[in-house]
Parts: sequence; C-alpha cells; structure tokens
Amino acid sequence: MDAPKQTSRLEAFSDGVFAIAITLLVLDLKVPEEPPLLDALLHQWPVYVAYLVSFLFILIMWMNHHRMFESIARVDSMFMLLNGLLLLGITVVPYPTSILSKYVLSDEQTVATAIYSGWFLLLAVCFNLMWRYASTDGRLLSEHDSELAAVITARYRWGIPSYFAAFALAFVWAPASLFLNAALAVFYAIPREIKLSPWKR
Amino acid sequence: MDAPKQTSRLEAFSDGVFAIAITLLVLDLKVPEEPPLLDALLHQWPVYVAYLVSFLFILIMWMNHHRMFESIARVDSMFMLLNGLLLLGITVVPYPTSILSKYVLSDEQTVATAIYSGWFLLLAVCFNLMWRYASTDGRLLSEHDSELAAVITARYRWGIPSYFAAFALAFVWAPASLFLNAALAVFYAIPREIKLSPWKR
Amino acid sequence: MDAPKQTSRLEAFSDGVFAIAITLLVLDLKVPEEPPLLDALLHQWPVYVAYLVSFLFILIMWMNHHRMFESIARVDSMFMLLNGLLLLGITVVPYPTSILSKYVLSDEQTVATAIYSGWFLLLAVCFNLMWRYASTDGRLLSEHDSELAAVITARYRWGIPSYFAAFALAFVWAPASLFLNAALAVFYAIPREIKLSPWKR
Amino acid sequence: MDAPKQTSRLEAFSDGVFAIAITLLVLDLKVPEEPPLLDALLHQWPVYVAYLVSFLFILIMWMNHHRMFESIARVDSMFMLLNGLLLLGITVVPYPTSILSKYVLSDEQTVATAIYSGWFLLLAVCFNLMWRYASTDGRLLSEHDSELAAVITARYRWGIPSYFAAFALAFVWAPASLFLNAALAVFYAIPREIKLSPWKR
Repeated sequence: MDAPKQTSRLEAFSDGVFAIAITLLVLDLKVPEEPPLLDALLHQWPVYVAYLVSFLFILIMWMNHHRMFESIARVDSMFMLLNGLLLLGITVVPYPTSILSKYVLSDEQTVATAIYSGWFLLLAVCFNLMWRYASTDGRLLSEHDSELAAVITARYRWGIPSYFAAFALAFVWAPASLFLNAALAVFYAIPREIKLSPWKR
Repeated sequence: MDAPKQTSRLEAFSDGVFAIAITLLVLDLKVPEEPPLLDALLHQWPVYVAYLVSFLFILIMWMNHHRMFESIARVDSMFMLLNGLLLLGITVVPYPTSILSKYVLSDEQTVATAIYSGWFLLLAVCFNLMWRYASTDGRLLSEHDSELAAVITARYRWGIPSYFAAFALAFVWAPASLFLNAALAVFYAIPREIKLSPWKR
Repeated sequence: MDAPKQTSRLEAFSDGVFAIAITLLVLDLKVPEEPPLLDALLHQWPVYVAYLVSFLFILIMWMNHHRMFESIARVDSMFMLLNGLLLLGITVVPYPTSILSKYVLSDEQTVATAIYSGWFLLLAVCFNLMWRYASTDGRLLSEHDSELAAVITARYRWGIPSYFAAFALAFVWAPASLFLNAALAVFYAIPREIKLSPWKR
Repeated sequence: MDAPKQTSRLEAFSDGVFAIAITLLVLDLKVPEEPPLLDALLHQWPVYVAYLVSFLFILIMWMNHHRMFESIARVDSMFMLLNGLLLLGITVVPYPTSILSKYVLSDEQTVATAIYSGWFLLLAVCFNLMWRYASTDGRLLSEHDSELAAVITARYRWGIPSYFAAFALAFVWAPASLFLNAALAVFYAIPREIKLSPWKR
C-alpha cells in the first residue's frame, strides 16, 4: 500500500521536471530583431536542429523512465537520490543546447559539440546507474527475473558506447558527432514493440 | 491493469507540457520601457490578440486531447511517438506567436502570418494522425464502433481544410487569415454538447 | 465513472497552470546590475510587495478553486470553457504585476495600480461566473442543497465589490488601492474553518 | 474519503511548484557572449556551484515534503497556508541563487552569501512550523504516536541551528558559509534508511 504511493509521487514529480525542461527549450528560439524575416529565420537553422535533437532526447529519456517505472515496485532513498541526479541532468539540457546553437557555426564548434555530446553521455550513464541499482538482485523490481533483467541491462548499456562515440567524434569532426546524436535520437524514438514485448509482458 | 497506468502517466506528462506551454505565452507580454504607460500598452494590441488566439488554440487542443483519451484504452510506442510530435508542436507555439506579434504591423506581415497559420495547420495534421492511428480498426480504443469512429474522424478532419484556408489566406490578405484563425479558435471553443453526446455517451 | 475522470484531469491541468503562473512570478525579481547590493535590493521594495500580493492572490485563487471542485461532480464543455477563461486570467497575472512594480513609484502610478487592481477584479468576476454556472439548479454539484449553494454564492460575491473598491481607489489614491489589495489577500488567506464547516461537511 | 482527495491535490500542486522552481534554476546559466568558449565557461564556476547547491536544496526539501505527507492524513486551511508560505519561499530560491552567483566573487560577497544562507534558514524554519503544526497532539497525522512525533520533531529541528550557523558564518568568512551550505545539502541528500526506518515503518 505504501510503496505504490511513493512511486506515484516520485513519478509525478519526475514527469513535472521532464515536462518543464522539454518546454523551456522554446526559450532558446529567438525572434529575429531585423528584417528580412524569412532570411533571418532560415539563418537560424542550427537553433532548430539543436532544439529538435534535445527535444527528442528528453522525450526518449522520459519514455524510458516511464517504462523503467513499470517494472519498479518500491523506491528507497538511494534510488530517489539517483533519480534526483538524473533530473538535475535533464533540467540542465537547455543550457548545452543553447551553447551548441550559439557556437556550432563558429570556430568553437569542437568545444560546443563536445559539451553537448558529453552531457548526453553523462545522462546515459546516470540512467544506467538507476537501472543497475534498481535491478541488482531485483532490489526494487515488482517481480524478479534475473535473466530478463540482464537482457534489459544489456540493452540499456548500448546507450553508453553510442553516446561515447558521439562524444569522441566531436574532437574528430563535429558535424559527424551531431549527426550521430540526431541518428541516435531518431533510432531510439522508433517504436520497438517486438524487442520490448518479452520485457513489457 | 497495465494499460490504464500507461495512459494515465502519458496524460499527466501531456497535461504538464500543455499547461507549461500555455503559461509561457505570458513571457511574450513585455512591460513598456517608456511612458506614457497607457499609450504604450494600447500600442501593443497585436501582442494581446496573438496571446489570446494562441491561448485559445492551446486550450482547445488540450480539451480535444482530453476527449480523445477518454476513448483510448491502450497506448503503444508509435502512439507515444505521435503524441510526442504533437507536444513538440505545442511547446513551439510561443515562438510563432512572438514572431507574429513582432512583425504583424510591419512589411513582413505576410511571412509572419503564414508562419503562424502554417504552424497551426501542422498541429491540426498531427492531431489527425494521432486519432487516425488510434482509431483505425479500433487499434487503441476502449470499445470499437467503426461507424462512430468514422464520424469522429470526419469531424476532426474539418480542422485541416479550415487551417489550410487560414494558411492560404495569409498570402492573399494577412488580416483575413488572422481573423479566420481567431474565428476558428472561438468556434472550436464554443461548447458542442449536442453533437458530441453520441460519442461521449 | 466517467465524470470523476473528467474532473480529475481538469483539476490536474488547472493545478499545473496555477503552479506555473505562481512560480513564473519570480522572473520579475531582477538581480541588481550595480553595487552596492544591499541598497539596490532595498530600493526594489515595490517589486517584493507586488510579488507577495500576486503570490497570495494566485494561492488563494487556487485554494478556492480546490474547494469549489470538492463540491463538483461533473464538468461540461461550457464549464471547461469558463475554467479556461479563469486560467487565461491567472496566466496573465505576472504581466500586471511587472507593470505595477515598474511604474508604482513613477508618475504613472494611477494607471499601473488601476491595471493591477482591475485585473484582479476581472478574475473575481470570472471565478463567480464559474460558481454560478456550476451551482445554478445544482447543475454540476455532487449533491444539491439550494440553500447552502446560495450561502456560498453570497460569500463568493463579496469578492466582486471588494476588488471593485480596490479598483476604484486606484483613481483616488493609489497607495490606498494597493493597501486594500494586500489586505484582501491577507484576509482571504486567513483560515476560516468555522464559516466553511457547514459547506465542507 | 474526503481527506485523501484534499491531500492528493495539495501534494500535486506542491509537486508542480517544486518541479518548476527546480527547473527554472537553469535560466541562471548564461551562454557566454564572447569566445574563447571553454575559458568563459570555466570562469563561470560560481554559477555552477550555486546551481548545484540550490538544486540539491530544493530536491531535499521536496523529498522531506514527500516524507512528511506520508504521515499526514488530513489538511486544514492553516496547514494549507503554511504550505503556501513554504512554496512562496521555494519559488523565490532562484532569486538569491542568481544574487549569489553574480556577487560571490565581488566585494559584496558577504551580503550575497548572507542573503543566500538566510533564505535557506527561513525555509528551514518554515518547514519546521509546518511539521510542528501538523504533529502537535497528532492534529493532522494518520496515526498518533507522540513519542515518535517527538523524535521526528527533534530531527527536523537540527536543520534550524545548522542553517543558522551557515548564515552566521557568512559574516565571518563567506567561503566557509557556502561550504557549510554545500555540506548540508550533501549530508541531507545521503540516504538515511536506518535512522528513518522506525518512523517510516
């Protein structure tokens, strides 16, 4: 009786933070000060790309957070703290997004791209830590199936090398790093009912 | 048991995004820097009109989202993704609203109005896609009544030509486009209990 | 079964809008650009007073909204629309608050105070309309007690002349209008369990 | 039946305010105007420290708010008002945070640090008032265990001298005050399952 209440309020708070962070991204879209309007808007294309990638990233994080909580029956203070760290990272996303959209076409392209990709890498690590903590020995899961948990762990772990590759690419050729980030966002956004079905019952 | 939980968290997240986007519109209302205050405020009338139309648009989108979910019993990943696209569009609304209110009285009136109306058209298309996906063969509906679903589909589809007309009018005479947008907002805001009653039981 | 679901999502959306509007007020508190810091902060006292009055006003509106919904069992489209109008008014509150705090110590004091008080008056009217619509013939109430409904109606109606008085005072002596607004906020914030008990069961 | 509904909506509203306030902190992170980007970002370190401490502070406040409501079965108007005061304080947190991060490296370090620490002290007092009001004679608790309530009261009370010490230190040596604030945030963030277990069942 107690546990579901704990979970539901933690989910509600997390949903609020995700929803606000994803909506605050719009503050980065600036109305051009000078006409011609259409040229000025088209000239801002890096802002739109950064907006889109960050929106998809937060959305996918939320979708996976949502799915993770379907398996979770209890929370403890350590898990709340790990969740808090994830939320800290999510609320900050508009910041590297602004940095990227301001500097992506400048000489500082490499630094801006590395910060952007690096932040996503940190969030992928954080998300994995949450799942590992919750799933080890079925600590917080509603029903323990160690084989299944291992499958999910393996799937989540893919996020870390992928985002690490995007981070490393920033130092080689920044556009490739951004392209990989966009591709990852699209890839993770594509529904994968079939793969998920054994897990989601 | 699982499905309602999924729906309720998706609704909660969507409600959060709608609520934040509708509230962030206020950031577009700027306090005049220079007196006389009353003149400066009255001079800003396009800002208020844009605020009002966008507020009503988001509110009506929310009301229809709310109604759609009354018929929906399940969600899958594709539906979550379509819902994510709709939310992407909703969070961006403050941006074309700012563009409109800044440029509606300038030479760039046509471009600003076309962007504003065009965005609403995209959202109407997106909303229709969601309903079509959910209702085809009763995929996600709580109980399938193909005749009824067709009626609703037809009703929702009216949104697309209406907003397309508003978009096209922007290139002919911008004030007419804005007037049509305002009229659509008011029209859709007017309660239609009678027409809805067969559907809503 | 259907009705409570409708109410709960309307409440959740409204809560979100109230919560965001009340939090966005903080954006009006500006960090002084120039030292000495303490003097600069103290010099901003009208900003803090406006913040406090507006915060209390939105909080009390939320508390009363909360109480009203305890008696309401159903919603219809007209009620959702009236609620939407109230939310429109609530989301705008940060705007007259900014106007007041910027102009209260200038020559435009009267205009700024009249706009501020006038907005609160409009919201009091809007809130009354909602209650009147919901309570007439017990239209949306969970159980109809026409005598009790009349008592509540009378109590709510007090808000209109009070806020009208504050509005009118703005044209006579602005500080008195602001003082009345602050007093009303404090007065309505004071718990009134005893008076409420017959109504709240 | 009535009471849980009251509590849940108060919790939902509070969750919304906490979630928004914690997310609005990001607006304080400014993208550097001038390259070199990395130097400019590193130069902003006080902004990040202030962000982190404030984020943890709000997160911990939310976690304790969450825990407090697990013991609370009813709310009354006075409690709603005290909760409103706490929320007022929480929504303002981004403001002293901005003040601190702007002035911490200037001559005004002492004033900025005192304002920052003083605000946290006020919030600790406010939180204690809420708990004292709710727990005295088990007024709003789900089940009354006066000994247990006294234990919790004692534990919460530690917050007041701790934050008072941080406030007082600001006048002696500002860095020590900030370090204590950070240490308190980390200390309260560390899970304390064992100590809590008697209380949380």
